[in-house]
Amino acid sequence: MKQQVAERMQGISAFYVMELLQRAKELERLGRDIIHMEIGEPDFPTPQGVIDAGRALLQTGEVKYTAAAGLPELRSCIADYYQQQYGVKLDARRVFITPGASGAFLLAFGISLNPGEQVMMSDPCYPCNDNFVRLFNGKTHFVDVDATTGYQLTADLIARHWHQASKGVLVASPSNPTGTLLGEGELQRAIDTVNDLGGCFYSDEIYHGLVYDQSAASALQFSDDVFVINSFSKYFGMTGWRIGWLVVPDGFVEAAEKLAQNIFISTPTHSQHAALASFTPENKAELERRRLEFKTRRDFLYENLLKLGFKIACKPEGAFYIYADCSAFTDNSFEFARSLLEQEGVAVTPGRDFGQHLADQHIRFAYTASVDRMAAALERLERFLCR
Amino acid sequence: MKQQVAERMQGISAFYVMELLQRAKELERLGRDIIHMEIGEPDFPTPQGVIDAGRALLQTGEVKYTAAAGLPELRSCIADYYQQQYGVKLDARRVFITPGASGAFLLAFGISLNPGEQVMMSDPCYPCNDNFVRLFNGKTHFVDVDATTGYQLTADLIARHWHQASKGVLVASPSNPTGTLLGEGELQRAIDTVNDLGGCFYSDEIYHGLVYDQSAASALQFSDDVFVINSFSKYFGMTGWRIGWLVVPDGFVEAAEKLAQNIFISTPTHSQHAALASFTPENKAELERRRLEFKTRRDFLYENLLKLGFKIACKPEGAFYIYADCSAFTDNSFEFARSLLEQEGVAVTPGRDFGQHLADQHIRFAYTASVDRMAAALERLERFLCR
Ligand SMILES: Cc1ncc(COP(=O)(O)O)c(C=O)c1O
Ligand SMILES: Cc1ncc(COP(=O)(O)O)c(C=O)c1O
Repeated sequence: MKQQVAERMQGISAFYVMELLQRAKELERLGRDIIHMEIGEPDFPTPQGVIDAGRALLQTGEVKYTAAAGLPELRSCIADYYQQQYGVKLDARRVFITPGASGAFLLAFGISLNPGEQVMMSDPCYPCNDNFVRLFNGKTHFVDVDATTGYQLTADLIARHWHQASKGVLVASPSNPTGTLLGEGELQRAIDTVNDLGGCFYSDEIYHGLVYDQSAASALQFSDDVFVINSFSKYFGMTGWRIGWLVVPDGFVEAAEKLAQNIFISTPTHSQHAALASFTPENKAELERRRLEFKTRRDFLYENLLKLGFKIACKPEGAFYIYADCSAFTDNSFEFARSLLEQEGVAVTPGRDFGQHLADQHIRFAYTASVDRMAAALERLERFLCR
Repeated sequence: MKQQVAERMQGISAFYVMELLQRAKELERLGRDIIHMEIGEPDFPTPQGVIDAGRALLQTGEVKYTAAAGLPELRSCIADYYQQQYGVKLDARRVFITPGASGAFLLAFGISLNPGEQVMMSDPCYPCNDNFVRLFNGKTHFVDVDATTGYQLTADLIARHWHQASKGVLVASPSNPTGTLLGEGELQRAIDTVNDLGGCFYSDEIYHGLVYDQSAASALQFSDDVFVINSFSKYFGMTGWRIGWLVVPDGFVEAAEKLAQNIFISTPTHSQHAALASFTPENKAELERRRLEFKTRRDFLYENLLKLGFKIACKPEGAFYIYADCSAFTDNSFEFARSLLEQEGVAVTPGRDFGQHLADQHIRFAYTASVDRMAAALERLERFLCR
């Protein structure tokens, strides 16, 4: 019987948080007040300048396919952005506009990964990573990480775990779910190590911009032979617009061009025109205000979770997540999250969405809610813990 | 050396028409007037009601991720649409909103196709089909078709070519590039045949609505065990919005849900809200006016190409293409297209973009230009042929 689900789907799981999210919505329909700290998207609306640019484009009615690689002027803006942010000279030919970082992953692995090849990544990490690899019949090689390396793969870990079937290494700095950075020196050593091994280095930089104590380094500062995945979703506040980008090494430009034509045709046109307005001084000022607000929230949530008895081995330096060890209260963080939602109406994401390593001892809090709402959540949490 | 382009990319080619398109743009920059009959998208702007709905959503600033499968109300609208158009009762749970029909193909093959399995399709056909199959390390089994079967795979052809490694069959009616239909009876027989063989039936119905002499049947009229790929791009005039849909058999609902979460997160939110406005009576009336305009254009172009000496073995009944045999003038349609562009500024698509079978004897004309522009193109074409 051939009318069967493809084998790769056996290894691809739905996000556990979806179950909680659905229950949260049910409770809301029943009139309960739910505080959402599970959601991986900014609570801010898209900045007004970007909205206005999108509306202006729609006004013309001309929402036609663009070039597969994206609007030339947007690719140039992004190349310039690397110069301003990181002092990196980047040829716009290497920049591909994609439907989110999600589309960037599709493109990056589609053009580089052969069946059976392995991509190394940390456990915990962003849950979709493994599934993109599976989509192309590759294999994920998870390496357990903990606070001793800031929950990041280091050059040393990479070298120790690299083997015959390894194709490359994926890192994300700041990381989802831990919010931790790979320091500049460590990033460079990791890239050097992978380059020496002849492998592909995939750097997910989607949380760049949302960094609070120092700035994050881009992989492009240290090598041209890297894939950089980024997006307008998080820092730029454009989740639902579905727009991101991929930077590829020179030798992959032609392949990326061909594959993008075939699988995307193009990235949403109105989103591309809107994204152009992200680089104005006004918008940058607005994004900086938001960054400072996130920093305030992080400090507030971090202090208060510690007070309640959660352990947070590494103070998160970026993104909008705190990955908290709840082992003082439970050895089953999924049940913990479920009860917290039922009893107190606070929604968080269970560790098992991000891997297996110590997953049942962790939950992820997203500070995508105001300080006031988080204060209310913390009160509820305290009551919950005292039961 | 692992830092190499994935092997699948060797078989994935850029569209030949891209070369012509680039040259056309160059010529335009030099001040030449180019008549575009190569482009596979409606020349009409997106209908005003849809634009307005998109603008209204942007106004709120809340362009957040939606559920991975799409807005529930849009899935319902589409399910209802099957009732109205085809008299088919369809559970909205089986409808997945995707980034274009392109996204629908990604999802359909991602959840059903194992490495090495073969998908049967006609030569000529839409060039991306084969490349979606390659993406997942499947194999395309091309079956040559000609006018005797209306350039379509029939039950008979399917049965004759089916073998051990066959996973399923992909048809498109109306077809790109030929504009021909698979008649209702033939479609039913094809589906029955594939179902009897236990295979997957993939029906690309993106040109439904753009049919001029009779209406096209949906695969869903004959079986629930089919994948239907469709889009807001063509009939609904929303190419650049990147929104389409996939209907899956019941047994694939869970897999589609999981994969969509992982590879898309969601389909552009503003596009989904805008698409909701496609189903109003005003919009339907506007789309009907456009359909009649396309019909006029088809008749005009068809008559005149015949007069010039092109052979068109099957009068196209849908889409906005005429696949014309130019063997009276050349045995290299790509060179023909190139010279036509250089000498007369008329852009068309060479047959080799759609396969190999008699490809050098065919070019595709898209009637996505007004009758006046096409009249000018025909004059130029006549002059070109008389040289
Ligand atoms: C680490 C990471 N990478 C990539 C993505 C994909 O985001 P998008 O496709 O919206 O750009 C996310 C979204 O949550 C993420 O957390
Ligand atoms: C036959 C066919 N299928 C699918 C597509 C993909 O269109 P979209 O992704 O814009 O819906 C096209 C576009 O030209 C097509 O011609």
